[in-house]
Amino acid sequence: MNLSQMSKAELEAFKNEAQAKLDEYKAMGLSLNMARGKPSAEQLDLTQGLLTTVVSSKDCIADDGTDCRNYGGVDGLAQAKDLFAPMLNVERDQLILGGSSSLNMMYDTIAKFMLFGVSKDSTPWKDQGRLKWLCPCPGYDRHFLVTETFGFEMINIPMKNDGPDMDMIEKLVSEDESIKGVWCVPMYGNPTGITFSDQVVKRFAAMKTKADDFRIFWDNAYCIHHLSDTPDKLLDLLEECKKAGNPNRAIEFASTSKVTFAGAGVAMMASSKENAEYIRSHMTVQTIGPDKINQLRHVKFFGSFEGIKEHMKKHQAMLAPKFAAVLGGLEKEIAPLGIGSWTKPNGGYFISFDSLDGCAKRIVELCKQTGVVLTGAGATFPYKKDPRDRNIRIAPSYPPVEELKLAVEVFTTAVKLASAEKLLNNI
Amino acid sequence: MNLSQMSKAELEAFKNEAQAKLDEYKAMGLSLNMARGKPSAEQLDLTQGLLTTVVSSKDCIADDGTDCRNYGGVDGLAQAKDLFAPMLNVERDQLILGGSSSLNMMYDTIAKFMLFGVSKDSTPWKDQGRLKWLCPCPGYDRHFLVTETFGFEMINIPMKNDGPDMDMIEKLVSEDESIKGVWCVPMYGNPTGITFSDQVVKRFAAMKTKADDFRIFWDNAYCIHHLSDTPDKLLDLLEECKKAGNPNRAIEFASTSKVTFAGAGVAMMASSKENAEYIRSHMTVQTIGPDKINQLRHVKFFGSFEGIKEHMKKHQAMLAPKFAAVLGGLEKEIAPLGIGSWTKPNGGYFISFDSLDGCAKRIVELCKQTGVVLTGAGATFPYKKDPRDRNIRIAPSYPPVEELKLAVEVFTTAVKLASAEKLLNNI
Repeated sequence: MNLSQMSKAELEAFKNEAQAKLDEYKAMGLSLNMARGKPSAEQLDLTQGLLTTVVSSKDCIADDGTDCRNYGGVDGLAQAKDLFAPMLNVERDQLILGGSSSLNMMYDTIAKFMLFGVSKDSTPWKDQGRLKWLCPCPGYDRHFLVTETFGFEMINIPMKNDGPDMDMIEKLVSEDESIKGVWCVPMYGNPTGITFSDQVVKRFAAMKTKADDFRIFWDNAYCIHHLSDTPDKLLDLLEECKKAGNPNRAIEFASTSKVTFAGAGVAMMASSKENAEYIRSHMTVQTIGPDKINQLRHVKFFGSFEGIKEHMKKHQAMLAPKFAAVLGGLEKEIAPLGIGSWTKPNGGYFISFDSLDGCAKRIVELCKQTGVVLTGAGATFPYKKDPRDRNIRIAPSYPPVEELKLAVEVFTTAVKLASAEKLLNNI
Repeated sequence: MNLSQMSKAELEAFKNEAQAKLDEYKAMGLSLNMARGKPSAEQLDLTQGLLTTVVSSKDCIADDGTDCRNYGGVDGLAQAKDLFAPMLNVERDQLILGGSSSLNMMYDTIAKFMLFGVSKDSTPWKDQGRLKWLCPCPGYDRHFLVTETFGFEMINIPMKNDGPDMDMIEKLVSEDESIKGVWCVPMYGNPTGITFSDQVVKRFAAMKTKADDFRIFWDNAYCIHHLSDTPDKLLDLLEECKKAGNPNRAIEFASTSKVTFAGAGVAMMASSKENAEYIRSHMTVQTIGPDKINQLRHVKFFGSFEGIKEHMKKHQAMLAPKFAAVLGGLEKEIAPLGIGSWTKPNGGYFISFDSLDGCAKRIVELCKQTGVVLTGAGATFPYKKDPRDRNIRIAPSYPPVEELKLAVEVFTTAVKLASAEKLLNNI
């Protein structure tokens, strides 16, 4: 029965039942976590062999003669670029390999644009007064924290089923020169799990922007992280930008954090050759270069991009049952009650749950009291402010399935209690 | 016989002889390199065992339970901090571990100070108009390139035998609020090889600065890189700053680039707890953290700081003969002629050679024509401008001793030729 159709007495009874059940869970002294998009230990074990691919002195020499132990190669090992270039559908000289953190590359790119401008001849963003940034949301909290720290005024852009509200974006960027960029996780987005439609990608590539130094930060973190055998397909933004006559508009980011090791993978970025050359010219000042031995490990472990894709099926096999456990629990416990909606991602690391308005904080709090940690309510919005207080990011990857099932039971019970409370308040 | 005492005819003969000898070397089709402070392949082999210290899943778990393969630890692995803290004589929470490049940490620190100021309450450097930076020189070209790129006006500070000209520095920083920092390689400096005296360190710590956001960038790159069994000793600047009531003045940098792998080591920085906390707060926005597996490799390979010190003796054994080969060649061929002076370092990676004024570019050019690559003349000065065109940085570490001896023969012959040309021009 839909909760909104219950009488006050029915709601009271429903609430008391949920409360009693939560109290039972509480008594169990649980300590469960669905907060972080971390790979599980079993997933990390999948690439344990990476660590023995480069051992001897001879192992350390790349195909082109580079001794990976020594200095050189500010933007990464050529052989590793050849491994990863097909993943982002780019040529070698469009690609820059970094250390282990793609967030670091995004932050550094914005820092460079702030200090030196987006190209040799452009005005540094720091010298252009108060600037703005578009934030499709719910989105990735670490993105928003970066642009908040750099002082951008962040503008919420609602997410639809096929990507951000492009009517709104097109209007804003065509009118306001102070809007300098937009965050996107275009495939299996964090946290919604949706993939941008071809139409959305084309509109991003072709739209008129008042600022000629507007840049799309295209965080393609989950580009090969499928959860089914019929994966989503994402149009190539860099290619579309080129076609549309805006070749320098987009910068794409990715990493192997959720392919090999979250703490010791390889981060990368790609853009037009012109943009890559410009970024590289600044990296030459910034660093002596990334860890080439680790890049060579990736080359030797996978052999080719085909090898990476094969490997991702093992991750899929581990993750799919976890997503199914969460989705099954939501379907069974919440769907009949009409007190929430959620995404059913075909890939990525998250499920996005929307409760009744004004319930998210309460649900997270109730879960916490019961020993289940969730991402903080509001975290998926700029300034951590969810205007409707309804979005909760669920991260199923880290806990074992049995723990996850228990955590989902707690979660759905908390949703029931908070929803009943809310509806009773509104009566 | 001192070249300056030769008659014109004697000089002509001397010059022709040097030219003939250079022509002979030229005919040999040499390809030698004394340009880069790179460890040799043999040095890199010393730490080959590092790569097998962390292999199994169990190996990846640090003492505190951290799975180094997964996310977490924005400023490095605690266990690795404990390994390196004694190297910089600091406590764990004063230390921040990074990726493989300490230059990257220096650049990022200046970028943060530009964008956000040196502390929570200070004005960002970018908002303080045109700024200046002190550059003791000859110095490290990559340092100067960083401050040039950030737009600082760089001021040359002459180097003395015990450090930079402190009278000049004290006067400048006491009068000019736009001077925000100074580069130092205080131990076995690049390229002079000298170590700052206690007095110089104390004066750096205690001097009055007009700018309260003045910062010393203390690049202690060669702190354990001794070439003899009676190493230099450097006073602890962080400690002296604290004693002098300027606890936040200095930031120290180091790395294992020339301890383990130049391309895959561990970089680090240390400062007051307050500074470290501030830097850490920005790193939390910037990155998901450095490669902890590589940090754990260092811990397991060395065991303790004592282990690192023992290991450095092996580097010493390989490098000392190379330095001796260069110094022996200079002593034999150049000393009697009075056409050059040079440092005799007790550690580090470089020998600094001063020719007669106005000869450095010519010497480097002559060597290049003869197949011996040297660091570009002028590179050791801001804007690559050596006001006296006399300083050349010699890097003996990379070539095998036999090649090095040949390269030094070419070099000393080029010095002879260029000097004779110069003196003849002056007649």
